[in-house]
Amino acid sequence: MLEELKPDAVTICVPNRFHCPITLDALNGGCHVMCEKPPAITPKEAWEMERTAREKGLLLTYGFHFRHSEQVAFLKKKIEQGELGEIYHTRVQWNRRRGIPGWGNFTNRNMQGGGPLIDIGAHMLDVALYLLDYPEISWVTATASDRIGRKGGRGLMGSWDGERFTVEDGLFGFIRFANGTSLQLETAFAINQKEENLRNVQLYGDKLGASVFPLETFGEESGELVNREYPFLQMRDWHLDCDRNFVDACLGKTELLVTGKQGTYIQRLIGALYRACASGEPEKF
Amino acid sequence: MLEELKPDAVTICVPNRFHCPITLDALNGGCHVMCEKPPAITPKEAWEMERTAREKGLLLTYGFHFRHSEQVAFLKKKIEQGELGEIYHTRVQWNRRRGIPGWGNFTNRNMQGGGPLIDIGAHMLDVALYLLDYPEISWVTATASDRIGRKGGRGLMGSWDGERFTVEDGLFGFIRFANGTSLQLETAFAINQKEENLRNVQLYGDKLGASVFPLETFGEESGELVNREYPFLQMRDWHLDCDRNFVDACLGKTELLVTGKQGTYIQRLIGALYRACASGEPEKF
Amino acid sequence: MLEELKPDAVTICVPNRFHCPITLDALNGGCHVMCEKPPAITPKEAWEMERTAREKGLLLTYGFHFRHSEQVAFLKKKIEQGELGEIYHTRVQWNRRRGIPGWGNFTNRNMQGGGPLIDIGAHMLDVALYLLDYPEISWVTATASDRIGRKGGRGLMGSWDGERFTVEDGLFGFIRFANGTSLQLETAFAINQKEENLRNVQLYGDKLGASVFPLETFGEESGELVNREYPFLQMRDWHLDCDRNFVDACLGKTELLVTGKQGTYIQRLIGALYRACASGEPEKF
Amino acid sequence: MLEELKPDAVTICVPNRFHCPITLDALNGGCHVMCEKPPAITPKEAWEMERTAREKGLLLTYGFHFRHSEQVAFLKKKIEQGELGEIYHTRVQWNRRRGIPGWGNFTNRNMQGGGPLIDIGAHMLDVALYLLDYPEISWVTATASDRIGRKGGRGLMGSWDGERFTVEDGLFGFIRFANGTSLQLETAFAINQKEENLRNVQLYGDKLGASVFPLETFGEESGELVNREYPFLQMRDWHLDCDRNFVDACLGKTELLVTGKQGTYIQRLIGALYRACASGEPEKF
Amino acid sequence: MLEELKPDAVTICVPNRFHCPITLDALNGGCHVMCEKPPAITPKEAWEMERTAREKGLLLTYGFHFRHSEQVAFLKKKIEQGELGEIYHTRVQWNRRRGIPGWGNFTNRNMQGGGPLIDIGAHMLDVALYLLDYPEISWVTATASDRIGRKGGRGLMGSWDGERFTVEDGLFGFIRFANGTSLQLETAFAINQKEENLRNVQLYGDKLGASVFPLETFGEESGELVNREYPFLQMRDWHLDCDRNFVDACLGKTELLVTGKQGTYIQRLIGALYRACASGEPEKF
Amino acid sequence: MLEELKPDAVTICVPNRFHCPITLDALNGGCHVMCEKPPAITPKEAWEMERTAREKGLLLTYGFHFRHSEQVAFLKKKIEQGELGEIYHTRVQWNRRRGIPGWGNFTNRNMQGGGPLIDIGAHMLDVALYLLDYPEISWVTATASDRIGRKGGRGLMGSWDGERFTVEDGLFGFIRFANGTSLQLETAFAINQKEENLRNVQLYGDKLGASVFPLETFGEESGELVNREYPFLQMRDWHLDCDRNFVDACLGKTELLVTGKQGTYIQRLIGALYRACASGEPEKF
Repeated sequence: MLEELKPDAVTICVPNRFHCPITLDALNGGCHVMCEKPPAITPKEAWEMERTAREKGLLLTYGFHFRHSEQVAFLKKKIEQGELGEIYHTRVQWNRRRGIPGWGNFTNRNMQGGGPLIDIGAHMLDVALYLLDYPEISWVTATASDRIGRKGGRGLMGSWDGERFTVEDGLFGFIRFANGTSLQLETAFAINQKEENLRNVQLYGDKLGASVFPLETFGEESGELVNREYPFLQMRDWHLDCDRNFVDACLGKTELLVTGKQGTYIQRLIGALYRACASGEPEKF
Repeated sequence: MLEELKPDAVTICVPNRFHCPITLDALNGGCHVMCEKPPAITPKEAWEMERTAREKGLLLTYGFHFRHSEQVAFLKKKIEQGELGEIYHTRVQWNRRRGIPGWGNFTNRNMQGGGPLIDIGAHMLDVALYLLDYPEISWVTATASDRIGRKGGRGLMGSWDGERFTVEDGLFGFIRFANGTSLQLETAFAINQKEENLRNVQLYGDKLGASVFPLETFGEESGELVNREYPFLQMRDWHLDCDRNFVDACLGKTELLVTGKQGTYIQRLIGALYRACASGEPEKF
Repeated sequence: MLEELKPDAVTICVPNRFHCPITLDALNGGCHVMCEKPPAITPKEAWEMERTAREKGLLLTYGFHFRHSEQVAFLKKKIEQGELGEIYHTRVQWNRRRGIPGWGNFTNRNMQGGGPLIDIGAHMLDVALYLLDYPEISWVTATASDRIGRKGGRGLMGSWDGERFTVEDGLFGFIRFANGTSLQLETAFAINQKEENLRNVQLYGDKLGASVFPLETFGEESGELVNREYPFLQMRDWHLDCDRNFVDACLGKTELLVTGKQGTYIQRLIGALYRACASGEPEKF
Repeated sequence: MLEELKPDAVTICVPNRFHCPITLDALNGGCHVMCEKPPAITPKEAWEMERTAREKGLLLTYGFHFRHSEQVAFLKKKIEQGELGEIYHTRVQWNRRRGIPGWGNFTNRNMQGGGPLIDIGAHMLDVALYLLDYPEISWVTATASDRIGRKGGRGLMGSWDGERFTVEDGLFGFIRFANGTSLQLETAFAINQKEENLRNVQLYGDKLGASVFPLETFGEESGELVNREYPFLQMRDWHLDCDRNFVDACLGKTELLVTGKQGTYIQRLIGALYRACASGEPEKF
Repeated sequence: MLEELKPDAVTICVPNRFHCPITLDALNGGCHVMCEKPPAITPKEAWEMERTAREKGLLLTYGFHFRHSEQVAFLKKKIEQGELGEIYHTRVQWNRRRGIPGWGNFTNRNMQGGGPLIDIGAHMLDVALYLLDYPEISWVTATASDRIGRKGGRGLMGSWDGERFTVEDGLFGFIRFANGTSLQLETAFAINQKEENLRNVQLYGDKLGASVFPLETFGEESGELVNREYPFLQMRDWHLDCDRNFVDACLGKTELLVTGKQGTYIQRLIGALYRACASGEPEKF
Repeated sequence: MLEELKPDAVTICVPNRFHCPITLDALNGGCHVMCEKPPAITPKEAWEMERTAREKGLLLTYGFHFRHSEQVAFLKKKIEQGELGEIYHTRVQWNRRRGIPGWGNFTNRNMQGGGPLIDIGAHMLDVALYLLDYPEISWVTATASDRIGRKGGRGLMGSWDGERFTVEDGLFGFIRFANGTSLQLETAFAINQKEENLRNVQLYGDKLGASVFPLETFGEESGELVNREYPFLQMRDWHLDCDRNFVDACLGKTELLVTGKQGTYIQRLIGALYRACASGEPEKF
């Protein structure tokens, strides 16, 4: 197809395992590429993708569409203006109570590279890292479990086969940044909690704390406590904004919001978290 | 006083710094001892206290009164009967929004040995460890901040002096147990969050999840989701139950619920968490 | 039609008055029959239908689709496992505030055989009797009223003509079972209550009480009170499940959930309740 | 005491068993009498008390203080003015989830004459009968259970001994009035329900329905549905109003609100309900 | 078009500026007219329209469809029956938080004759005046602001251009009726309030107060406070009822609900309010 | 007393009628004076009091304690910093549903000078004027009613005698400031509304709107809507702060928060509002 049509730009939506080879083909075919998240299955692949795009002078971006949300875009501005002060701790959660997908390859490590961390946790990690300006990581640690998944069962997103369940069902991590601050992570396809779907990023700054979904901030004004909520005027279509950013960047009208370099970074973080689960030790980044 | 009255048993309520010397005096004077939590300031002190009591054949216990709550006592039985299955992750939180005590020595590291971790977080850590049966720890890690505390200010528990604030105002940790499971910890005297006081322990088992304050459980029955809540018939006085357990143990009627050995263990954990904050590295336990 | 097409099975949806003759024709024509509830207008008709099906060796079932609900199916299993203990009292309600149907024959005793008892109360009675395992009844009693209906008026289900209103608008009964337990019944097309539509079955067992819509249970665990709620994973289509059961039974794959014998039983109960309203006396069953 | 002081009036608060003999002594001693509810243990006693008072020309009243509530007093007026129209059904409930009194003689049939029916249900029955103007009863029926009580246990009102539990723990009745209307009754010291304490009287009139605690009414205005709630200006002390009525009646300033004749009536009703539980049959009144 | 088709009746939906000329053409062409509200831009125009219709013997009405709502129609009857007693004060509000229309001519005084007063406030003013029976006005006063509108911006109804914003964004008035009672008015396209859209009429009578959207009343019954709410059986289509009233009136079946005379009256009121804003003085009516 | 004790300062709490003569005596006796609000009964009295204090060089203040509330003090600072922008409209309300005081002289115009306006509305008017910086008034208008009061009755603050009720029970006013902005006022001892007690001041600025009790603000941040709430750290005792301000001012440590000049101003406003009720015309200020 690439040879026949010679498109200027392509969008890639396939199982994670094929993200890298197809992206490389497209880049080598001269196309700008927008690839679903996660970038790939291994950090090495992501790096290869980033390097190739750079060498070819082509655009490479990933579909981390939560960055385009009103909440994240608005909070990013506040952080850049220093309103939160120093952010010294971040909590990241995306836990589904019984949300193991009953379709696709989501429970197949070979095809997807992992479970909730690489599928849904990656989105919230990207939101947090973007808001923190992709800071340098010292080391990470995590534990994981597949106890609910490997039993098989029926859930809010269909039934799944325990025998073919080869990914984690929950992962709990800790990231220490080089500047001495930390991030706690929870992500699960299935966990015994009250909420059907718990998805949030919380930032603790010394001037202001923020909860992103929905956006609220907590701090002081003239020595008195203040809570702020933001009833947004209009909700945008985040996926569309994601696509538009790619198209506009292809047309030279704007910068990419999500860069290939950030893709490599988050892929390395995912890799390190999985390594830490396996080794039982903290992993240097 | 010990020499004159020769009491059989004493209760010790003084700044943390004096817990160890007074306890040792009392034990050497032949008294059973019930000491406030935390046991002491350093793990070495706690070990000395435990060793002395054992050698003297005297009782030593600590005032971790949350263990006597209906919620914890009831959940402990459920866990012992295997109702939660394997507990593979635990979340521990005691965060006050603006709760830096304006009185006493709570902000003085020299007198107290630390801030929210040793004062309030220790209670919730003990609840979690007790429910998990004081499991073996591999290593711990944490970061801390004193950014809000050292500014000084006014809060829900009075005003404090930033210049004399020598403890952490928040601490965020991760504990990896030898059995491959983990615990995430947050504890703060002051943090920019919505809740005035957020205090809870949440346990994630593969059969049942539990939230302790108030007690609720989340799991399945015959393949369907079920939530349970427990409107307790009568609320006991936890402090009184704590005292009663000590008196009854002195009279030989029952066993101590909180042992000197557990006191040493939690003091070692507190010490390791503070070491990790200082070193910026995970600390072996 | 029966003669020409000679179908294997038929479904009957006509005014109650025609349930019996058409069912008999179908059975005599060699068809399995699924008939809407109620079975018929009189107990004698229902008995005739049951007898004919038995003699012809054909299947006969009725559309009591609430039995197929997740709530009833799930609770039935709990009761069979003895979780409720002895159920010694049951409360059955289906009261609409202003829900006299403005269309069809629902207010015409000649066509329908009665009002809310035979139209909507019958569903909840069937749920209760099914959960109680269709126990032996000693006698029943009831009073009825048509004071609101015969005035005519406008309601949430259209306008109705008071002059042609020949059924009860509310009926209040008491059933004593041979085992010494009881059931209280309220059912109304129109009644001066707060709720627009009040529909529930509540069972009082000595181990556990249960409220069916939505399903909740109330009891004790280790001497403490416990409430359970069931956020069901997926809601089934009850009508479809009802049809599927009939089709599968025709194909010999399963048993009928609702039997002709139960149909006769509930028709006798409805008949006895109406007789008691008329006589002002308890009626032996 | 009666002989020495020769009081004009006495108030009697003793176990139910002694209501009758002491009241008779007091009446024979020339005193007006206000006796706790229920009047006595048997209808015969209540009749004896009523007859003696009448013969002596003395006042006899009972402490049915709920009649003095704002809710009942206000609703009584509305009923007298015809606002509810014909009341054709009444629901009476006083069910405690775990409220078996752990003190006194409340679980001793010999001393009290019964359990929740005579202790708490009697209050709500009196409210209903008073609002209905103490109508003529045709017959009554009921079933009772002591399954929770005789197990013994601990509840919201203390612990009780199952071996000494000789009363019903729950009773479920049906009353048919001579005018063709009905009343359903539930009363329990212990029952597996969600509410800690469920206490209400609901009246269904053809013009208006009413729920008494709190007072709300449900009906129509000009063909549209209307709900009314009554935020009472001031809550009176019902017990005090009860005493005041007795004192004022003794002073000739007012009529007794609760008469000896009504006391006999309700005692006969209680007796008939207990008889029906024992016989398993409806009991003529 | 009028000449060719010679219609009996026309409906006019054009910018306010053209209401008068087109209506006059239609009336002169022999048509009955139903014109959107407001009648026109100036009182003089409205008067001309009313006079022409009268002289031609044709029907003229305006689309004040809120009068056709269940709430207003029902309350009107209650007022006519004297249930509210004397209404001595009325509060009228229609404030949008950020609801400056981003389309049409709504911000153009030349085309529309004004902003929120003539566009949305007029509806609520009509409701109030209709319920008060279009009482005689002594004088009116008001202030207005365009501070938010003339800045331009983005809101819940699109973006608007501050430079072309020539109407008020908020207007606050006081009307004194000849009978000594008063009406307070607030109406805004954009105002810094919590509610997204605050729309209500409240009437204070000495017997009963009423809030119209939703309809509730507040008063006393036999000396006790009572609140009433009206869960309407069926919601009508107010616009349709408005059209139906016009058609039926054309067919001679009914009277117009909104008359040309009332149209002139409300146009005069709008004119006086705008004059008062300009003069800074109360304006005689 | 003044002669004997020669106090430095006095506090005056007597019926309004005596505010002026006693204050003048005290000032003439050389005392600083803190007088309850309202200053007096007539503007002339208030002016006399202000003049006398000034001539004697003594302090005169009034008990408008709501100014000392956290809400008002905090909002005042925000307004002074320009956060609200231009405040172009203010709504002031203190309406009790049935709160005619059944004790004291509150219903006696001769003793108090008026009803709710002078008793409770004056507090909220002072809050609003203080926040607006006591702006120049052009003219005022109002209507009043005594329809509920003069009937007599029973309410949430006791019973009152309709025959002795000589004040307004509700007053509804409009104030136009010289800068072209406006204030709407409602104040009532008794009015047919839902709320038992409705007490608030709302300010509409072009940058921010504010509701004072409880304090919330409504505006925009970077083009998005934002709501802020203030969970105040500690509630002060407003009356005590009021007294403390007076004592500290007497001791020369601080300025008076409420000045005699402001007292005269608000008394003139009250006088003008009552005049407008009587004349039926707007009154120049």
